[in-house]
Amino acid sequence: MKELFALDRVRVVLSRTSHPGNIGAAARAMKTMGLSHLWLVSPASFPDPVAEARASGAGDVLANARVVSSLQEALSGTVLAAALTARRRDLSLTRLDPRAAAAELVQCAQSTCGEVALVFGNEASGLSNEELELCALPVTIPANPAYPSLNLGAAVQLMCYELRLAVMGQGGGTSFLPVEPLPEPATHDEAENFFAHLESSIVASGFLDPAKPRRLMPRLRRLFGRVRLEKEEIAILRGILSSFDAGMKNSQQKQ
Amino acid sequence: MKELFALDRVRVVLSRTSHPGNIGAAARAMKTMGLSHLWLVSPASFPDPVAEARASGAGDVLANARVVSSLQEALSGTVLAAALTARRRDLSLTRLDPRAAAAELVQCAQSTCGEVALVFGNEASGLSNEELELCALPVTIPANPAYPSLNLGAAVQLMCYELRLAVMGQGGGTSFLPVEPLPEPATHDEAENFFAHLESSIVASGFLDPAKPRRLMPRLRRLFGRVRLEKEEIAILRGILSSFDAGMKNSQQKQ
Repeated sequence: MKELFALDRVRVVLSRTSHPGNIGAAARAMKTMGLSHLWLVSPASFPDPVAEARASGAGDVLANARVVSSLQEALSGTVLAAALTARRRDLSLTRLDPRAAAAELVQCAQSTCGEVALVFGNEASGLSNEELELCALPVTIPANPAYPSLNLGAAVQLMCYELRLAVMGQGGGTSFLPVEPLPEPATHDEAENFFAHLESSIVASGFLDPAKPRRLMPRLRRLFGRVRLEKEEIAILRGILSSFDAGMKNSQQKQ
Repeated sequence: MKELFALDRVRVVLSRTSHPGNIGAAARAMKTMGLSHLWLVSPASFPDPVAEARASGAGDVLANARVVSSLQEALSGTVLAAALTARRRDLSLTRLDPRAAAAELVQCAQSTCGEVALVFGNEASGLSNEELELCALPVTIPANPAYPSLNLGAAVQLMCYELRLAVMGQGGGTSFLPVEPLPEPATHDEAENFFAHLESSIVASGFLDPAKPRRLMPRLRRLFGRVRLEKEEIAILRGILSSFDAGMKNSQQKQ
């Protein structure tokens, strides 16, 4: 998709990762969201069969990963870097949440045509102060204060998801996914004809006494009004009512 | 935090999970976002030391996990269930994205005081059609169409993150308390009993041939799933069905 080109300008940088499985999980997470540029700063073990296994179908992301020896190198050529940090530090006065950070990164990638980076530290120790200082945007994932310890692959998944949403332009709202041909909604008249049919069947069944209607039909209207019935659904419901009608008519004729 | 109480009303249900590592990863993901109720439907291996290892500091979530043998059991007592699905299916026309689904679940948990569920299928095969039909909200994570295959733990992380954001969004801001008690929603079991009654009445009427069910019941489930039926509405609908049943039985006896 053309409009997602900004994702091709994002480097995911993992610094001093201890467990190769997490590198594989990060590659998989990236690919599911349409990212492909993985940079590894001094990984403990890479390449590694454990990383391959966890990457599942994202072996290409691993195969194309760049291994460098410092965060400086990994950020060379980028125009903006965001750093994931769980800890509160005196210098990081304005930490962003993932959504805001994704919006900034995407906006920057789209408007400057430069590359941007998303930087993740070591599983246990995170990013060093020196590494954090190389990144303009500190980002903190809102988490349970009693246990804020996200798995590295899960944090990569979450950030890449926010990047994808930001690129799709859905960062802000609650939007339905695009679905192809929407079912045709019933017209007002079709709905009214259904309600008339429903009422007459219920009266025929004896459940509704027209002399004492209580609030039955308004309640049923409220129920079906919440659904926004489709044309085909009305056809099905009326087919069912007709088969009930036929069964009961049969009964009355024989009485 | 008081305002996050809705997270305590969410069940994360993993159905037929193959790899115990993913169960551990899911437990960890849940705990980082403040969720704790894990339900496992027929897991391939549980408890399992691999799950323990991957859960890291979330062993308590594993220890309290409930193991059941069907999704029906796991949903018993809930008032709304959302199901993760990657596949496009003819009937699931209005799939929600994670943000919209989280908003619906949290809104429901907060306003009805009922429990809600978030359901994840097997790593390879996902949820069966039968399982999907038990859940009112189909959810699809927007992903790379060329590789939409999120790791199970990563998908759980992402959904729990959206739930946490949804709760914080409503808890932190101007919160709208329902002015008068909202109508009591039907439980999963009440809804299932209604569907069973509906099916038997339609079969009795001759409209549905059990030998050739076509897609009638799934369509009706989708229709009523969109409404989120209330307790009283189910009582009314079943009353109407019973009066149809009586009319038709009468007819058959006289034939």
